[in-house]
Amino acid sequence: MLSADNQQERIISSINPWYVTGFAEGEGTFHIAIYEDKLMKQRIKIIPEFHVNQSQLRSITLYSIKEFFNCGYIKVNHRTNLKDDTLVYVVRNNQDLREKILPFFEKYPLLSKKQESFKIFSQIVWMMFRKEHLNRAGIRKIINLSYKMNGNGKYRLIKKEKLLKK
Amino acid sequence: MLSADNQQERIISSINPWYVTGFAEGEGTFHIAIYEDKLMKQRIKIIPEFHVNQSQLRSITLYSIKEFFNCGYIKVNHRTNLKDDTLVYVVRNNQDLREKILPFFEKYPLLSKKQESFKIFSQIVWMMFRKEHLNRAGIRKIINLSYKMNGNGKYRLIKKEKLLKK
Repeated sequence: MLSADNQQERIISSINPWYVTGFAEGEGTFHIAIYEDKLMKQRIKIIPEFHVNQSQLRSITLYSIKEFFNCGYIKVNHRTNLKDDTLVYVVRNNQDLREKILPFFEKYPLLSKKQESFKIFSQIVWMMFRKEHLNRAGIRKIINLSYKMNGNGKYRLIKKEKLLKK
Repeated sequence: MLSADNQQERIISSINPWYVTGFAEGEGTFHIAIYEDKLMKQRIKIIPEFHVNQSQLRSITLYSIKEFFNCGYIKVNHRTNLKDDTLVYVVRNNQDLREKILPFFEKYPLLSKKQESFKIFSQIVWMMFRKEHLNRAGIRKIINLSYKMNGNGKYRLIKKEKLLKK
């Protein structure tokens, strides 16, 4: 078993942008995390996140992609579930998203419907850059857009209507 | 929702080989199916198979990859499980494996340990081309090699020792 450092050395030079897109097509997700947060003026916290999942068996791919983008971090996917030994590569920093992740998937687009989620994701990241999430109308628009992503929000735990009432 | 035909038209021209490798890194499997078969002289049937999984939401990717390789077929992954709506792209034809799949992954290799499984897979496909699976020693060698693939055969339902006794 190679250490993470050795894995990186072996890989980085050879990774092709389309390999990253192909891998992200299967394992990547553009997600807008939406939390109820009473400390926020609008009582809702919005966190755009790009993440890529993979089992530890193929962690080399995640380390390569992290090096490729030169941002983000890798963590254990579900710390509390011992049966789930998968890792996840995460980019949450808004500047990294705007300057690295978004331009990349504009240039090397996904083939599938996931690209539509990417476009909404991109729209929301730029709305937040323009501070539109700091007013009620902006928050509502972001929530509505978010629930059109990733199969119309079918994986979300909180109903959209509940968030819109906050 | 585009029909399969339209999906193919929209995609094929733009697919990049490294996209295929990246997608296969996450969703592809090189598998040696091994069945007990009393009709066979060696009582064991060996079927090398390359397959790529994906949910129907992203079936466009599978259709693109099928067109890219110009071989194989797409089917419902688990016909009997209504909850599993995933599709799978399958290549079982030995000539297609030798002439299309194996050369491709030699030229555009996977980054992860899956490439090691690919190399064993390739070795077995060529052994079978030389008819080595028609004698006892060859069968034993193929079984032993097969159980070194994909995490040392941890997903296999039949114990290696049981097959070697046949």
